[in-house]
Amino acid sequence: MTITTVGLDADDTLWHTETHFRLTHERFEQWLAPYSATAGDRLAEVEGRNLRLYGYGVKGFILSMLETAMELTAGGDATPLVREILAAGRELLAFPIEPLPGVEQALAALGDRYRLVLITKGDLLDQERKLAASGLGDLFSAVEIVSEKDAEVYRRIFARHGTGAGEAAMVGNSLRSDVLPALQAGAFAAHIPYPLVWTHELADPPTGHPRFAELASIAELPAWLARVGG
Amino acid sequence: MTITTVGLDADDTLWHTETHFRLTHERFEQWLAPYSATAGDRLAEVEGRNLRLYGYGVKGFILSMLETAMELTAGGDATPLVREILAAGRELLAFPIEPLPGVEQALAALGDRYRLVLITKGDLLDQERKLAASGLGDLFSAVEIVSEKDAEVYRRIFARHGTGAGEAAMVGNSLRSDVLPALQAGAFAAHIPYPLVWTHELADPPTGHPRFAELASIAELPAWLARVGG
Repeated sequence: MTITTVGLDADDTLWHTETHFRLTHERFEQWLAPYSATAGDRLAEVEGRNLRLYGYGVKGFILSMLETAMELTAGGDATPLVREILAAGRELLAFPIEPLPGVEQALAALGDRYRLVLITKGDLLDQERKLAASGLGDLFSAVEIVSEKDAEVYRRIFARHGTGAGEAAMVGNSLRSDVLPALQAGAFAAHIPYPLVWTHELADPPTGHPRFAELASIAELPAWLARVGG
Repeated sequence: MTITTVGLDADDTLWHTETHFRLTHERFEQWLAPYSATAGDRLAEVEGRNLRLYGYGVKGFILSMLETAMELTAGGDATPLVREILAAGRELLAFPIEPLPGVEQALAALGDRYRLVLITKGDLLDQERKLAASGLGDLFSAVEIVSEKDAEVYRRIFARHGTGAGEAAMVGNSLRSDVLPALQAGAFAAHIPYPLVWTHELADPPTGHPRFAELASIAELPAWLARVGG
């Protein structure tokens, strides 16, 4: 078995993202505390419901915060909250990006041997900004920003940028988006957990799958790839 | 000279979009009329300033409307306005899509002879929704949703999906985004005007450029392509 192409998720695989979203979530709960004790749960529901309308990314998250705030403050003056939310949204579109420990070394080692493709969901411009800010852009031969990560998307991307899903591996922190659909497409998949997982990315790990591995850190990736795929 | 690949813009080239944005713009002016006589101009300024933060598309437009409303109502209760704007935004993400006159016939005729690539800016999911709703998806061999349309982007896309920009033509309603950068990349370019042009897409037409044409409608496209590029 030969692996020619490695797809890598971006947010919370190459750099921190969920930490920033989680802090904003907590600030939102504090702002709404006078109106509701379950504002955070309600926000998560609204976010989930809005995914099919707004898609993934910061802009949809800002709009979901605004919508939730309007709902929970019904009848009151939400103007100061709207200001806070818009400002928090702008911050989320501008936080500094620093690669997670070991990322640069791992990518540099992999780049000699495999074609590296960044595969990420979210807002187009924001994902491009983060990649540029990370300084990792030159290590990738292609970047694919997609509206959903399913088996069909992985098949298309690995056909376009590599030698097909059967000779590719996908690596990321989300079992639901990075691992399960990549395995379904016929690729290898490695899960590198991040301490925080967004509610909408939760899933059970595959059990005993021959093309799957759970790695403690990206530093373990080159050795695993060499073992399973030459 | 051989043309193998034709890139087509989507919004206001294949279906109406600006009409819907313009109506929302006018509603915004009416809502803000008690606070400002120049709310529309202010909104256009805020939109332009925010492009580098939010990128193109409906979600950024909603956020710019909200920001402008917060600014113009400073000190007042903007809650009812925020509700109106969020609702108008949801409408903009769901308006029905119908191909402009002649589009289906022109694309069907072109599809026999050229590789057709849809090249559009905007929100990922929203652009995909509109393409799916248009029923035109099967006529394209590739779809590229990009954060900016510049010469480099056209070079990359026509290299990836065709035989290079020198053997490609780009077609759209925006001189600034569809015509000028495509010509700069070495491609042919046809401008098909739409009655309304968004402020941020205004530009002067090229004069006497051998690879450029202005067409009255998409029905003229097959004949022009046959004439200039075999």
